Amino acid sequence: MTITAGTPLRVVVWGENRHEQVEPHVAELYPDGMHNAIKAGIEENLGAAVDVSVALLDDPEHGLTEERLAQTDVLTWWGHAAHGEVSDEVVERVHRHVLSGMGLVVLHSGHWSKIFQKLMGTSCTLRWRSENDRELVWTVDPTHPIAQGVPHPIEIPQQEMYGEQFDIPKPDEIVFISSFSGGEVFRSGITYRRGNGKIFYFSPGDQDFPVYHHKDVRKVIANGVAWVASDRAERAEPVLLRYETGDFFNGRGYQGAMANHEAPVTEAAEVAE
Amino acid sequence: MTITAGTPLRVVVWGENRHEQVEPHVAELYPDGMHNAIKAGIEENLGAAVDVSVALLDDPEHGLTEERLAQTDVLTWWGHAAHGEVSDEVVERVHRHVLSGMGLVVLHSGHWSKIFQKLMGTSCTLRWRSENDRELVWTVDPTHPIAQGVPHPIEIPQQEMYGEQFDIPKPDEIVFISSFSGGEVFRSGITYRRGNGKIFYFSPGDQDFPVYHHKDVRKVIANGVAWVASDRAERAEPVLLRYETGDFFNGRGYQGAMANHEAPVTEAAEVAE
Amino acid sequence: MTITAGTPLRVVVWGENRHEQVEPHVAELYPDGMHNAIKAGIEENLGAAVDVSVALLDDPEHGLTEERLAQTDVLTWWGHAAHGEVSDEVVERVHRHVLSGMGLVVLHSGHWSKIFQKLMGTSCTLRWRSENDRELVWTVDPTHPIAQGVPHPIEIPQQEMYGEQFDIPKPDEIVFISSFSGGEVFRSGITYRRGNGKIFYFSPGDQDFPVYHHKDVRKVIANGVAWVASDRAERAEPVLLRYETGDFFNGRGYQGAMANHEAPVTEAAEVAE
Amino acid sequence: MTITAGTPLRVVVWGENRHEQVEPHVAELYPDGMHNAIKAGIEENLGAAVDVSVALLDDPEHGLTEERLAQTDVLTWWGHAAHGEVSDEVVERVHRHVLSGMGLVVLHSGHWSKIFQKLMGTSCTLRWRSENDRELVWTVDPTHPIAQGVPHPIEIPQQEMYGEQFDIPKPDEIVFISSFSGGEVFRSGITYRRGNGKIFYFSPGDQDFPVYHHKDVRKVIANGVAWVASDRAERAEPVLLRYETGDFFNGRGYQGAMANHEAPVTEAAEVAE
Repeated sequence: MTITAGTPLRVVVWGENRHEQVEPHVAELYPDGMHNAIKAGIEENLGAAVDVSVALLDDPEHGLTEERLAQTDVLTWWGHAAHGEVSDEVVERVHRHVLSGMGLVVLHSGHWSKIFQKLMGTSCTLRWRSENDRELVWTVDPTHPIAQGVPHPIEIPQQEMYGEQFDIPKPDEIVFISSFSGGEVFRSGITYRRGNGKIFYFSPGDQDFPVYHHKDVRKVIANGVAWVASDRAERAEPVLLRYETGDFFNGRGYQGAMANHEAPVTEAAEVAE
Repeated sequence: MTITAGTPLRVVVWGENRHEQVEPHVAELYPDGMHNAIKAGIEENLGAAVDVSVALLDDPEHGLTEERLAQTDVLTWWGHAAHGEVSDEVVERVHRHVLSGMGLVVLHSGHWSKIFQKLMGTSCTLRWRSENDRELVWTVDPTHPIAQGVPHPIEIPQQEMYGEQFDIPKPDEIVFISSFSGGEVFRSGITYRRGNGKIFYFSPGDQDFPVYHHKDVRKVIANGVAWVASDRAERAEPVLLRYETGDFFNGRGYQGAMANHEAPVTEAAEVAE
Repeated sequence: MTITAGTPLRVVVWGENRHEQVEPHVAELYPDGMHNAIKAGIEENLGAAVDVSVALLDDPEHGLTEERLAQTDVLTWWGHAAHGEVSDEVVERVHRHVLSGMGLVVLHSGHWSKIFQKLMGTSCTLRWRSENDRELVWTVDPTHPIAQGVPHPIEIPQQEMYGEQFDIPKPDEIVFISSFSGGEVFRSGITYRRGNGKIFYFSPGDQDFPVYHHKDVRKVIANGVAWVASDRAERAEPVLLRYETGDFFNGRGYQGAMANHEAPVTEAAEVAE
Repeated sequence: MTITAGTPLRVVVWGENRHEQVEPHVAELYPDGMHNAIKAGIEENLGAAVDVSVALLDDPEHGLTEERLAQTDVLTWWGHAAHGEVSDEVVERVHRHVLSGMGLVVLHSGHWSKIFQKLMGTSCTLRWRSENDRELVWTVDPTHPIAQGVPHPIEIPQQEMYGEQFDIPKPDEIVFISSFSGGEVFRSGITYRRGNGKIFYFSPGDQDFPVYHHKDVRKVIANGVAWVASDRAERAEPVLLRYETGDFFNGRGYQGAMANHEAPVTEAAEVAE
C-alpha cells in the first residue's frame, strides 16, 4: 500500500507476553516485552505514517474486540507458548477481518498459531533447533517492496533454526530464503492473499535471542506492515451472491441450496441448512 | 501419479445423495444417484486401474471411518444442500488424511463444503446463477496431465453459472478457465498441494443438469483422480520435529514451547500447552 | 511503486504509429494517434505524479536511445503492423533496461512484439477475431493495486477478441480474465518480474475500436504504470560474480569457464568464450 | 509423464565435451566424458523405459539436426566453457521443439547456455565459487514426482557453490532448495512450462567434482527426464490463428496486421511484415 502523508496506518502489535513474565533471560533481552520491541521497530521505520498500539493475550478478548479490529489496518502476531489459550471466537473474528481486507504480519513462532493455521489450511509444521545458529536471510525477489533497504544477505548472529520442510501452501511470493549454520534452509519471508486481505510471514525473531532489536529485521517487519495494508477503498467480506443474466452489479443473497432453480427467489426454501 | 498395471488405485466417491431423494427432476437425471454417475465416469476412463466404491452422507460416520480412509488413495467429494450436516470430526479426519497424502477431487458445489474451506482457509464464495447457461471450458495449461484427451474448449450445453470472484487462494496451477453465455468467467479447473496431498477442484457438474453424463467432464474427473493420487512411497502426516546440529535424519518430538533451549530434552517441561 | 509528491515518474509511451497513417477509420478514432490517447489516459489519472513523453517507430533509433532509456522509469509499448521493423539492437537495449529495473507496460497487440517475446521466451501466440465482440474484464485478484478503482467487470462494448490458449509463461499474477461475446476467455491482465524489472501486460486496446478512450481502460493502464515503476534505490543489471567464502558483499567479475578452480584469479584464462 | 511398458522414451544427452579434453583432472573424474556419466545415471534408474543416446558440440550441427530432434522426447543439456560456440540456428531449432512439446532438462552450468537464456528471457546470472563447499539439497515440494526416492536432504560432499540471486523468472515449481557450507542458498531444482514443453533445471553437477556419479543426483536427473516427457498425444508448435464466431475448432492462418477487420480473408494484404 502507498504510505503517504495522509491518515496514519492503524497498526496493532499483538503479543502473547508470556516468556517475558516467566523466563528471566527473555525479560532481560526484552525488558518492555517483545511486543514493544516490535512496535518500536515499526515506528522507527515508518514514523508518522503509522499509529501503533499493542494488544496482549491477557487483555479482555485478547485485546481484539470487533470494534478494535474494525479500526485496525494491519495486525502483527507473535505467539509461542500459549497458542492454545487463544479463544476460537477471537480467531474466527480475526480470520473474518483478514478476508475482509485487514493486513496481517505473522512473526516467527506465530507459524503455529491458530490464526495462521486457519488461513493456510495446513499443519504449518517445520524442523527446528534452538542452538545459536547464525541465520543468513537472502533476497530472492529483488523487485519486492518488502526487500527494499536491507543488505543481501541480512546476517543474524544468533537465531533459532527453522528448517524445511515447512508445511505451508505454495507462497504467492517468496521474498527471502534463509540458511543456518547447521546447513538447513527455510522460506523465511513469504506472502499470501486470502480473500481481500494480504499476509506476510517472516520467520526471523525469537524470545531467546535479541532478534527484534536487529536493525534489518525491524526494517523488514516495517516493510511488511506497509505492504499488507490494503489498497482497497473499503473493507468487505467476500460473499456468495446470485446475479441475473445481464445484471453484473446487483447480487442477491443466497436463499438455500434447494432454491437455486427458482429465480428470482423471494423466500427461502431451505431443506438442509 | 503413474497409473500402471499394478495394484488398482482405491477410489472412494463421496456423495451427499439428498437432491436425488427430494427433487424428482434430479432423480430423473440421475436415477442411480449422482455419485454412481461419477463412479461410472471414472471406471469408464480408468478401467482396471481403479477400484471405485461409494460413501454417502447418511452412512455411519458418513462412510468415512479411519479404517476406510487409511485404505483410500483418492477421495472425490460432491455436496451441496447438506454441507452443514457433515460432522466436524469427519472433516478433521479427512483433512488429516489429505495432509498425509490422500488425493482429493472436489466437485462443483463442493467448493462450499467444510473440507474445502478448511483446506483453502478462505470463504470459497463466488457468484452464481442457475439458468441454463452454456459453459465453455478452455484449457490454459496444455501440458497438464489433467487436460489430456478433451477438446479445446469442452462445450457443456446447459450449466449452472459459477463466476468470479471466486474467493480461493491463488491456485498452484490453473488448468481450465470457463466462460458462460451470460459473459461470466470462472477458474474452473485448479490444483493445490496441501501437506503431502494433492487436490483438484473442477466446477462443471450440477444436480439440475446432466453434466456427469458428459463424456468430456467424465474424462477430466478421471484425469483428476489419476493426478491427485500420491507418488510418495508411504502416507505420513507432516510433523514438527527437533533436529540436532549435523543430524539431518533423526528428528525428536516436540517437548513444549518453554523447553526449546534445553537440548536434548528428555522430559516435557510445558508451561502452556 | 509508491506514487508520492516527489519527483515525477518519467514515462515514455512508445507507439508504432502506422495504422493511423494508413487507415482512415483508425485516424478518425485516434486523430492524434493512439500513442497520444494512451498518454492522455495516463496523465488524466496520475496528473503531476508523472512526466509523460512519446517515442515513435519512425524516430531515430525508434526514439529509444541509450540516453533516453537511462532517464525512463516506465516504458509503455504498442505495436502491431510493424513488429518486424523494430531493430534488434533497440530490442536488446530495452531488454537490458527492463532487467536493470525499468518498468514495462505492454499493450494489446504488443503481445507479438520482439521485446515481449524476448522477455517471455515463448511464441506469445493466441486465437483472435476482429468482429465487434463485447469484452468483459473480470478482476480475479481483488487485492492487486492494478485492479483498484475500476468496476467488476469492466464492460468494453466493441473489441477485438483475443482468446486462449495464450502461449505465455505462467504469469506471476493474473489480475484480470476477460470473456468475449463469442464465448472465448483470455488472461487479459497479467504481471511478470524479469531481472530487477516489473512487467504488466494488458490486452484491451485496439486500433479498430475506441478502446483507449475508455475511462476504465485508461485507469488500468495508469495503475499499471504506477505498479511497474521500480521500488529499488538504483538501476542495476544482474551480473554473474564470484564471492569468496565468508565475504558476502564483494563479488569479483567472471574470468572465464576454465578458470573457476583457481581462486583468486587475476588474469583471464579463457578457452572458449 | 507416465513411464509405462510401451515404447521407450527417446532421450538425447547433449554434452559440450570440452573440459574432459583439456583438463586432466576432469578427464580423471569422467574418463568417458560427463555426458556418458549422465547417460549411465538415467539408464540405471529408468532401464528399459528409456533409449538414451549422446550428442556432442563437435558433432555436425552439434548432433541436433531437425530429423533427430523430431525423434527426441527429452533432451538434457550440459555446457559451460563453450556456450558461445553453439550456433544460433541450432538454438532456434531446439527452442521450437521445446515449445512444440519436447522435454528439456538443463544441468548445472547450462544455466548460462543460449537455449536456457532464450527460454527464460532473463540473464540467468548468479553468484558462484568453486571451493569444495558441501551442498545440501532440501526438498520443499514433497508431493513432486521429481522429489521421490531421494533423502531429505541429499548430501553432496564437494560442490561448486551457486547462490542467490539467481536471475530467473519465478519458477512454476520449486522442488529443491540448496544450502552450501559458506552459507549461501540456491533454488536448485525448478520447473517451467514453455509452450507445450516442460523444463527442469537442476543445479548439482560439475566438471571439477564427481557429482554425476552421486547416486541421488542421478536419481533426480532420471526423475526429471521422466517428468519433462510430454503427456500430449502429438507434438505441435503454438500458432496464431483466427477463429470465426461460433466455430471453436477451425482456425485460419494469419493474413497480416492490416487485414484483421476483413473477414474472412482469402488473400494476404500485408503492409508491414
